[in-house]
Amino acid sequence: MANEKTLIGRRGLLAASAGFLGASVSSGRGQASNDSEGLVPPWSKEQGAPIRESSYGEPSPFEKNVVRRPRGALPTFPSAGTSDTPLQNLTGIITPNGLVYERHHAGIPPIDPAQHRLLIHGLVDRPLILTMDELTRFPSVSRLHFLECSGNSSATWTGGNPKWTVQDTHGLLSCCEWTGVLLSTLLDEVGIKPAAKWVLAEGADAAGLSRSVPIDKALDDAIVVYAQNGEKLRPEQGYPVRLFLPGYEGNMSVKWLRRLKLGEGPFQTREETSKYTDLMPDGTARQFTFIMEAKSVITFPSGGHHLKGPGFYEISGLAWTGRGRIKRVEVSTDGGTSWHEAQLQEPVLSKCLTRFRLPWTWDGGPATLQSRATDETGYIQPPRRMLTDVRGFNSYYHLNGIHPWHIDPSGGVSNVA
Amino acid sequence: MANEKTLIGRRGLLAASAGFLGASVSSGRGQASNDSEGLVPPWSKEQGAPIRESSYGEPSPFEKNVVRRPRGALPTFPSAGTSDTPLQNLTGIITPNGLVYERHHAGIPPIDPAQHRLLIHGLVDRPLILTMDELTRFPSVSRLHFLECSGNSSATWTGGNPKWTVQDTHGLLSCCEWTGVLLSTLLDEVGIKPAAKWVLAEGADAAGLSRSVPIDKALDDAIVVYAQNGEKLRPEQGYPVRLFLPGYEGNMSVKWLRRLKLGEGPFQTREETSKYTDLMPDGTARQFTFIMEAKSVITFPSGGHHLKGPGFYEISGLAWTGRGRIKRVEVSTDGGTSWHEAQLQEPVLSKCLTRFRLPWTWDGGPATLQSRATDETGYIQPPRRMLTDVRGFNSYYHLNGIHPWHIDPSGGVSNVA
Repeated sequence: MANEKTLIGRRGLLAASAGFLGASVSSGRGQASNDSEGLVPPWSKEQGAPIRESSYGEPSPFEKNVVRRPRGALPTFPSAGTSDTPLQNLTGIITPNGLVYERHHAGIPPIDPAQHRLLIHGLVDRPLILTMDELTRFPSVSRLHFLECSGNSSATWTGGNPKWTVQDTHGLLSCCEWTGVLLSTLLDEVGIKPAAKWVLAEGADAAGLSRSVPIDKALDDAIVVYAQNGEKLRPEQGYPVRLFLPGYEGNMSVKWLRRLKLGEGPFQTREETSKYTDLMPDGTARQFTFIMEAKSVITFPSGGHHLKGPGFYEISGLAWTGRGRIKRVEVSTDGGTSWHEAQLQEPVLSKCLTRFRLPWTWDGGPATLQSRATDETGYIQPPRRMLTDVRGFNSYYHLNGIHPWHIDPSGGVSNVA
Repeated sequence: MANEKTLIGRRGLLAASAGFLGASVSSGRGQASNDSEGLVPPWSKEQGAPIRESSYGEPSPFEKNVVRRPRGALPTFPSAGTSDTPLQNLTGIITPNGLVYERHHAGIPPIDPAQHRLLIHGLVDRPLILTMDELTRFPSVSRLHFLECSGNSSATWTGGNPKWTVQDTHGLLSCCEWTGVLLSTLLDEVGIKPAAKWVLAEGADAAGLSRSVPIDKALDDAIVVYAQNGEKLRPEQGYPVRLFLPGYEGNMSVKWLRRLKLGEGPFQTREETSKYTDLMPDGTARQFTFIMEAKSVITFPSGGHHLKGPGFYEISGLAWTGRGRIKRVEVSTDGGTSWHEAQLQEPVLSKCLTRFRLPWTWDGGPATLQSRATDETGYIQPPRRMLTDVRGFNSYYHLNGIHPWHIDPSGGVSNVA
C-alpha cells in the first residue's frame, strides 16, 4: 500500500527539496532581525492594544472571511435554514463555538435561562420540572463528540457544483466538548415505568421540534447538555439546554429542550414522518435511520483551494462514525487506483471527529484526491455509487459516500460534479 | 479513604433526597407543556433570529458577565498586563478562544500575516526565512495542552483577599487544541550544528520578548503554533504564529514569533535575568525554572459562589502537570483531615488540563474544600506552607500549593486569606 514517492523522511530537506520555500536568508530577501532600513514592521516599534477591563476575544480582522455561511442564497424563510462550518479553514478536531454549524426550524429563540423549565413526564414514577439551577446541580459529564446534520453533503447525491467548497459540501459538521447531565441520571431520578420504551424530546422554539428516542439510547450515552467547549451553550446551539445523542443525526439532539416524555412507542412526530425519512426508489421510506455511518472528507486540499505549484503538501481531513471509533483512513491521490494509510491524530475518541494526515508530493499533473474511513465495527465508507445503486436519487439524508476533489494542473481544486 | 456519606448511589432519588428540587409536577408550580393561560413563553410562539449571510457566533446576552478580567484595577501601563480566564464559569477542559487568558508585555500587535516572517538562524547549516504560507505547508500536529502563566496564583503566597474568585487566584490558566509544526521538523530543515544547545525565541511585539529554550525541549514536543481550537490563533495569543512549549511556564511560549536563533548557551535575556526568576530567602535567585509542577484547584464551589442550602453538590475542578499526565486527584471537605479520590474525566492527556469531580452532600455547616493532585512521576501537590518554608515570601512565580476555599453556613464561598 505504501508509495515511497509520497512519503517524506524526517531528515530530508523536506521543504527545500519539495520546492515550497521562496527564499532563504542567503537569497537576500531581507533580514527579519533588527535593522535600521525600515524593514522592522510598525507593530515591533509601537505599543499594541492594551488589556481591557473586561473582554471576550474575537478573531483577527485578517480572518474575517472565516465565517459560517448558508450554501448558496439565503432560504426564502431564513428562520428555517442552515449555515455551514468553514472546514476548509479549520485544523485539528475542535470546532470553535462561533463556527459551529446551524440548523434552525424556526430561528434562534432568545430564551431567558431563569424562565426556562425542563419537564420530564409520561411513563415515569415521579414527574419533574427542573429549573436550570436545579439541572446544573446534578452530577455532570464532559465528552468530545461530533455533531452532523443528517442532510450533510446531501446536495452531492448527484455530484453538485464544481465550485463548491468543503464548507458547501460537508459543512453541516462540527465537534465540541459537550458538558451536561447524563439523561440516564435524570431518568433514574424520575423512575422509569416498565412499559416506557421511547422518549419524546421537544424543543422550546416556535417549531416545537420533536423527535422520539429509543429508551436504550436514552439510558446509554445521551446527555442533557448545557455547555460546549467550556462555556455555556451558544444561543444557536440550544441555550440554555439541549439534548445530545452521540453519533445520531443532528436534528435528534433537540435544541432549547423543554420536555421529555416517556411512552410505549415512537411518537410519530412530523419530523419523523414527513421529514427526516429516507425515500427509496420503490416509493417506500426508511424511518428512524438514526445513526450517522462512517464517513470522511479531505479538508485540505479541497474545493476553492489553490496549490502554489508542484511539491510537498500535507493532505489533511476529518473522519467520524456514529458507531464508535475510527479505525483506519485511507487516501487516494489517483482517483481510487491506489490507497495509502493516513496517520490518525491521537487521541482517537468514540463518536468524535478524527483528524487524518498524509504527506504528499504533487507532481503538477491532474489528480483526484479522496479518502475512505473504516470504523471499529469493520464498516468501510462506500463509494457514492454503491449508495445510489441501492437508494436511488430521491433520497436526501445520510449520504456518507467517498468524496473526491479534482486538482487541475494550474493547482485549482474543485468539487467533482 | 471513601466516605459513604458523600457518595451518591446511581439509583437513589439523588436530587429529591438531597433537597435541591424546588418543585415537582404534582406540586402545582405549573405545567411547562402547552397551555392556554399565558404560561407558554414568547420564544415558543414567535419565530426566532434567522440565519445570516455570514456569521461568527457570540455567547448569549445572558452570559455577558462571563469575560476575561484583570485582577483588581487595570495596571498603570495597560499594554503590560494580564487578564484572567473565568474558571468559575467554565466546565470540562477546553477554554473557548474568547476566554483564553492574556499576558502582554507591550500590548497586542496588529500583525498582517502576509507581511510576517519567521527567521531561523544562528548555529544552523541553512538559515531560513519563512512566510506564513510556507510555514503552513510543513507537516502539522494538533495537540491538547494547558497554558499557565508562571505567575498564576502568585498573589496567594500570603493568602490574599477573601473576596477573590478562582478567576482572580488561578485565572492565568487555559487549555486549547493547538495546531502547528513541530519545532523539530523546522530544525531538521535548517540543520542543527553540533555546538547548538539552546534556542532563542523572539517575539515581534514592541517588547521583543525573548526567552532561551534548551535544545532538548526544542527537539522534544515544542510546536510552532498557528491555530487554536480549530481556527487561526487569536491576536492576543500570538497571531499569526507563536512558539508553544507544553508544560513550560507560559511566557516561554513566545507569541508573535519572529525569530529563532540557535546558540551554544542560554542568551540571558532580560526576561530570564531580571524577570521570571525566583528570589529565594537568602537573596539568591533560581533561574530557568521552566516546568509547571503538578497543581489543582476546585472551580466549583469556589470564591464568590453561593450554595443554595444544604444538600447534594458536585465538587469539580482542574488538575494539571508540566511533567505528563495527572494520576490522581484527592479532595478534602474538612480542611485536610480526610481525603476522597475524585473521578478524572477521560481522556487524561499529557500536559493537558484534567477535570475532576466528586459528589458531595453539604450538611450546612462551615467547611473548607481543597484538592491535591498527584502526577505520573509520583509528585504530590504540596501544602502552600511546605513551599513557603523553603522559598520564603519574596518569591513570586511557580506557586503550586494546595488552595483552600471556605464555605460559611450561609452558603457563601470565600478565598482562605
